[in-house]
Amino acid sequence: MKIAVLPGDGIGTEIVAEAIRVLNVLDLNFEMETALVGGAAYEAHGHPLPEATLKLAKEADAVLFGAVGDWKYDKLERQFRPEQAILGLRKNLGLFANFRPAICYEQLVGASSLKPELVAGLDILIVRELTGDIYFGQPRGRRTAVDGHFPGAEEAFDTMRYSRPEIERIAHVAFQAARKRDKRVTSVDKANVLETFQFWKDVVTEVGKEYPDVALDHMYVDNAAMQLVKAPKKFDVIVTGNMFGDILSDAAAMLTGSIGMLPSASLNASNQGLYEPSHGSAPDIAGKGIANPLATILSAAMMLRFSLNQTEAADRIESAVKQVLASGLRTSDIWSAGTTKVSTIEMGDAVVAAI
Amino acid sequence: MKIAVLPGDGIGTEIVAEAIRVLNVLDLNFEMETALVGGAAYEAHGHPLPEATLKLAKEADAVLFGAVGDWKYDKLERQFRPEQAILGLRKNLGLFANFRPAICYEQLVGASSLKPELVAGLDILIVRELTGDIYFGQPRGRRTAVDGHFPGAEEAFDTMRYSRPEIERIAHVAFQAARKRDKRVTSVDKANVLETFQFWKDVVTEVGKEYPDVALDHMYVDNAAMQLVKAPKKFDVIVTGNMFGDILSDAAAMLTGSIGMLPSASLNASNQGLYEPSHGSAPDIAGKGIANPLATILSAAMMLRFSLNQTEAADRIESAVKQVLASGLRTSDIWSAGTTKVSTIEMGDAVVAAI
Ligand SMILES: CC(C)[C@H](C(=O)O)[C@@H](O)C(=O)O
Ligand SMILES: CC(C)[C@H](C(=O)O)[C@@H](O)C(=O)O
Repeated sequence: MKIAVLPGDGIGTEIVAEAIRVLNVLDLNFEMETALVGGAAYEAHGHPLPEATLKLAKEADAVLFGAVGDWKYDKLERQFRPEQAILGLRKNLGLFANFRPAICYEQLVGASSLKPELVAGLDILIVRELTGDIYFGQPRGRRTAVDGHFPGAEEAFDTMRYSRPEIERIAHVAFQAARKRDKRVTSVDKANVLETFQFWKDVVTEVGKEYPDVALDHMYVDNAAMQLVKAPKKFDVIVTGNMFGDILSDAAAMLTGSIGMLPSASLNASNQGLYEPSHGSAPDIAGKGIANPLATILSAAMMLRFSLNQTEAADRIESAVKQVLASGLRTSDIWSAGTTKVSTIEMGDAVVAAI
Repeated sequence: MKIAVLPGDGIGTEIVAEAIRVLNVLDLNFEMETALVGGAAYEAHGHPLPEATLKLAKEADAVLFGAVGDWKYDKLERQFRPEQAILGLRKNLGLFANFRPAICYEQLVGASSLKPELVAGLDILIVRELTGDIYFGQPRGRRTAVDGHFPGAEEAFDTMRYSRPEIERIAHVAFQAARKRDKRVTSVDKANVLETFQFWKDVVTEVGKEYPDVALDHMYVDNAAMQLVKAPKKFDVIVTGNMFGDILSDAAAMLTGSIGMLPSASLNASNQGLYEPSHGSAPDIAGKGIANPLATILSAAMMLRFSLNQTEAADRIESAVKQVLASGLRTSDIWSAGTTKVSTIEMGDAVVAAI
């Protein structure tokens, strides 16, 4: 078994280092190989996703990813910007199924912007399609408008699209995930405006017939954004497209107050996967040793469970994290009066000790 | 001066009736003419936006709109569904500038899902472009995929697009609105992924140079969704495209806890406008006489201010609403212990009396 380790930029290197220490203490039988990605790779090799990094990722059973990006790359041409590495990995590895749990940890209820009673016990799973939609649709670019309000004017455009098998496979993923949870799927679309999402709704409805034990409902994306704010606990599994999923999963993660704690997994059809924290590279706190490594450590646990078939080791990490939280240790992002503030490394130490 | 009154479906008729009573008591010199729209128009004339209704709206100086839609129309072909009336009015009247204030009323702080300190005093203005983007871009439809992951499969697609003059005019609207407020504009895009929104960002930046007194920043839509949840008061004016604006403005409205109170205005280049509450047709409470008419009454005030040049009358409505709230009257959506629950008509009565 081989893990490609791509720490990336900003706090990426600090948090991935802790996840690796945790993996090492489990004494499992796998190889890890590290490579540059994002801004770090651009600086060393002139590209955010160098050939060698992509090759390593493709050959590995799983990718453990930190985070990429920094304001200093904002002025680069799009193809050289750090985020392109993420998009390139998703596309080249065919990672179409993104799992983003939005969980409110019992001890962190107070850290949510929402009132405690609205988030205590919150446990939603957002299943976001990750290789289709307007992210990759062709054609796209600039041209002279031929219709619209200002024919003859300069315009930019993109293509949103989903094919039937793309929708079917992500729907199956969502229904199967729901079976292991509260057996409810909410499919989020904008069928009242978009052809793509009328089709999405139709296909998800058809796939749903194969899962009579799972309740399916449909919600417009604007309404879903409202319901997430109003009563997030009403959701179980949300399944949606790449663009809507980008927006809703970030909103949901932030709602929990636990964003520094939330892992994510992006899988392809052969369960090869990329695992990364739900938060970003946080260049403002990079190098200070204060970032929260728990989302990355929990991403490593997801990796063991989903791609490496090491359920027991995954369980051990997850209970170690719970134990550490229960003991009152907190990095500064989740610190509150009465708890003990620790550094990135101290948090890693604590998880290692708990294992 | 002529107002086209389009009450629509669900609670639409009940709330518009109260707004009309309020307008009438002001004894201003204008004509009102009512027409069917949405599901009601479909049932009577076989189309949600009949010719006669569109003609009336086009000829009027302003449209006072209630709400449209009901689950019972969900199975109709798209072109006959109630929402198509809204899209048709926007397109035919060229209503490109949508103003959606997200205000947390002092007395309603407790009704927000967010903690009181995060929303007390909240006052954001979302300026949403309303006639472009993926809502109206061509081509769109179904076809056989020629590329993507499953060439040969059935697929659906839509076109996102913005031309330079479309972006310029909505940017001007946002900067001008900011000048009357806290002089800060946040332009929300997804320039890291979409050609359309890289162009959007570039053009907004250029327009911004004409407003050196207004601070401009840029935020990705996923981050904007997070920041709205985390610290909504950091925003002043948000300007964004049609699709992102749809999602963010609903999320922001719900965050305030005041959604039953929030008006909206959609204007074209000659200040002709459509005014409607930010909430929907609420078929579940229609006919019960309990809907909150205040968002519609405040929309009528916006109409007087923006399209009919009756600033004083607008002020009178707005202070009457404040007075009524201060006196403790509440419809059930905003009721809390210690306040007096009133019906739709009683709320209308109270505003009329306060004027
Ligand atoms: C960095 C960016 C391209 C990416 C996306 O939009 O998918 C990010 O926001 C995410 O959600 O992983
Ligand atoms: C009804 C629907 C077409 C509409 C939109 O998406 O614009 C609504 O959600 C709105 O925001 O006014």
